[in-house]
Amino acid sequence: MPTPVEIALARLEELGAISDAPSHLVRTFLSPANREAAEKILSWMAALGMETSQAPDGTVRGILPGKNPSLSPLLIGSHYDTVIDAGKYDGSLGIIAALAALESLKLETITLPFPVHLLAFSDEEGTRFQTTYLGSRSITAPLDSETLAAQDAAGISIARAIATESPTATAAPILYPAGTPRGYVELHIEQGRVLEEAHEPACVVTSIAGQSRLTVTLTGRADHAGTTPMPLRRDALTGAAACILAAESLAQSSPPLVITVGKIQVHPGASNSIPQTATFTIDLRHPDDEIRQNSLTRLHESYLRIADERQLHLHWLPIQDNNATPCDPTLTASLLQSLTAITGSTLTLPSGAGHDGVAISKICPIAMLFIRCRDGLSHHPDEYATPADIATGIQILTHFLKSHNP
Amino acid sequence: MPTPVEIALARLEELGAISDAPSHLVRTFLSPANREAAEKILSWMAALGMETSQAPDGTVRGILPGKNPSLSPLLIGSHYDTVIDAGKYDGSLGIIAALAALESLKLETITLPFPVHLLAFSDEEGTRFQTTYLGSRSITAPLDSETLAAQDAAGISIARAIATESPTATAAPILYPAGTPRGYVELHIEQGRVLEEAHEPACVVTSIAGQSRLTVTLTGRADHAGTTPMPLRRDALTGAAACILAAESLAQSSPPLVITVGKIQVHPGASNSIPQTATFTIDLRHPDDEIRQNSLTRLHESYLRIADERQLHLHWLPIQDNNATPCDPTLTASLLQSLTAITGSTLTLPSGAGHDGVAISKICPIAMLFIRCRDGLSHHPDEYATPADIATGIQILTHFLKSHNP
Repeated sequence: MPTPVEIALARLEELGAISDAPSHLVRTFLSPANREAAEKILSWMAALGMETSQAPDGTVRGILPGKNPSLSPLLIGSHYDTVIDAGKYDGSLGIIAALAALESLKLETITLPFPVHLLAFSDEEGTRFQTTYLGSRSITAPLDSETLAAQDAAGISIARAIATESPTATAAPILYPAGTPRGYVELHIEQGRVLEEAHEPACVVTSIAGQSRLTVTLTGRADHAGTTPMPLRRDALTGAAACILAAESLAQSSPPLVITVGKIQVHPGASNSIPQTATFTIDLRHPDDEIRQNSLTRLHESYLRIADERQLHLHWLPIQDNNATPCDPTLTASLLQSLTAITGSTLTLPSGAGHDGVAISKICPIAMLFIRCRDGLSHHPDEYATPADIATGIQILTHFLKSHNP
Repeated sequence: MPTPVEIALARLEELGAISDAPSHLVRTFLSPANREAAEKILSWMAALGMETSQAPDGTVRGILPGKNPSLSPLLIGSHYDTVIDAGKYDGSLGIIAALAALESLKLETITLPFPVHLLAFSDEEGTRFQTTYLGSRSITAPLDSETLAAQDAAGISIARAIATESPTATAAPILYPAGTPRGYVELHIEQGRVLEEAHEPACVVTSIAGQSRLTVTLTGRADHAGTTPMPLRRDALTGAAACILAAESLAQSSPPLVITVGKIQVHPGASNSIPQTATFTIDLRHPDDEIRQNSLTRLHESYLRIADERQLHLHWLPIQDNNATPCDPTLTASLLQSLTAITGSTLTLPSGAGHDGVAISKICPIAMLFIRCRDGLSHHPDEYATPADIATGIQILTHFLKSHNP
């Protein structure tokens, strides 16, 4: 008989093969593959003896009542949607590892004292509607009318998609009033290479970093590349280059601050024209909101200085500003004890990427476990975690469930 | 009766109104507007008593035989084609100012001792065929078969355009065997703002700068902007930023070297992805070929260093390498004497932009006169030179023609 880990590894392949495209993995909100994946997860939950249900938005729940079904439930899970051309681990591993941990307990004939609700969210990536945390938000409160009106590329709104595409459009919603769950725990691949560099299979997450996104435009003067001596230039791109290096050096001097310029556009954009404008994005993240805001201020000041020195006009346009989501100290300490018990490590990390816990933190304490992934690669078909690391992750989750006091 | 300068100013407007587009100025090789412009120039030449002809490619010539028609002729002129959405001065002013200078001589009843050939080239900008100096090259030698095969956006070759669109497809070519003209002199707007900054209406050109064009690609590693700490990054764009600043500081430290990065592209180009590749252009110009080559070597060395320090792969791809075209010292000294006589100035400049003289230098000595233009603006509808500066340019040309010794 296969072990829970072997079953988990087989299920990762099985779920990873369910796709809306023949050539690559993609499952978006309520797509045929997404609905098929939900059916599959429901069948796995049922095989474990869980009481299953599915919300109108497709989010799936399996309940193990435990010894005392009236106690506040522990939520555990992740999302089963994917980005386009995705890997098999992001999201799916969190659901499958939770199933494996519960199966391990069953093999040990352990019944937990409290209920466990295994949740599989229909949408976290926002691939179809450019929204985030759709599934996990929907368990904290009914989706607001603005969100329901968001349209996909074909002009279909979320409300209409639920009404016409969901197999459970008229089912009861899955909703948790704030304070009713005892906590939410999620296992996820790291999506970075810190664990790999540290030679650790797993770590506990301290917080999900806050993020500021901006668009910066420098404007100078377009001139002829051959006839304009250097001292007479007002080159927007050399100014942008100075700004990009200033961002890099600010981040380097204040870890774990990270600043990324991922996009840049230049106008007129001809090899023989001095750039008139350079527009670039800033993505700045830090687990401490005050440090993030101070860093933004310092960056802005340095950009004003650069623009002034180079006679450029600076347009600093904030696009998004999300506060950090701290993980719950008590729940995290408990998860860390399990990490140490299994691996000997006490490593903790802030999460630079967003996760369902951001939404769920509004209703209960959250904690997260990161599993090492190869080369930090994620949102890519080569995304990979070793069977050994997955087994370790399942062991940590199992240990955590067993040692959690109601 | 209007003066030659007044006539010249009116002609600039008249020629500037001849366009293939109703909303902006554009005249490309053998287009209807180009042919109409040629007719207009031929009529002005004829009014001056010149013997006129037109080559198969549309290039126009007017001859004033002078006292001794058997002497070697002085060539003078410029081009009458334009870029798209052009100004009225680039090219046209050189033709119209030459006509005005010859008219001034006529008013003074001066007959030059040698023949003057006024040339108006049908194509210098290469807007239609992405070629350069088409008209001026065609007077130095028959166009080679590779050039004649070049196609426009509609797939029409130069050979076919001449055969089917030229009003003088079967006319005798205008050709000068090497060494037969005594020299070529051209008046042109500066297309930069050095004269404006120096408060000088005109200057003499020492040489037409050599130009190196390259494409540089840095390759690092695409990573998640939120989950990759700064020390683990191999960011192609921060590397490119360092390269762009290195180019700027090299050029700043060695005037009149100019280096321009006019285009940059980043992949994957998402605000939350660390750039894997950054590709940018380099345009490097200097009037001294040896200094230009040494500068290229120094730039390459600094890029290798930057790539090495940042663990990036550098691809350094030379695209074009044109040597400088020195102006003829004797002819230039003579033009400079006329500049000084009229303006009191002895200012000389290298030309960073290319001109017909580059092609004509293969058959005879060349010299050029630059006229101040507003804000350095060229290839733009707001291109402008003041009537006073145009008058000064015409005076300098007239003085030069009068004082040139056969």
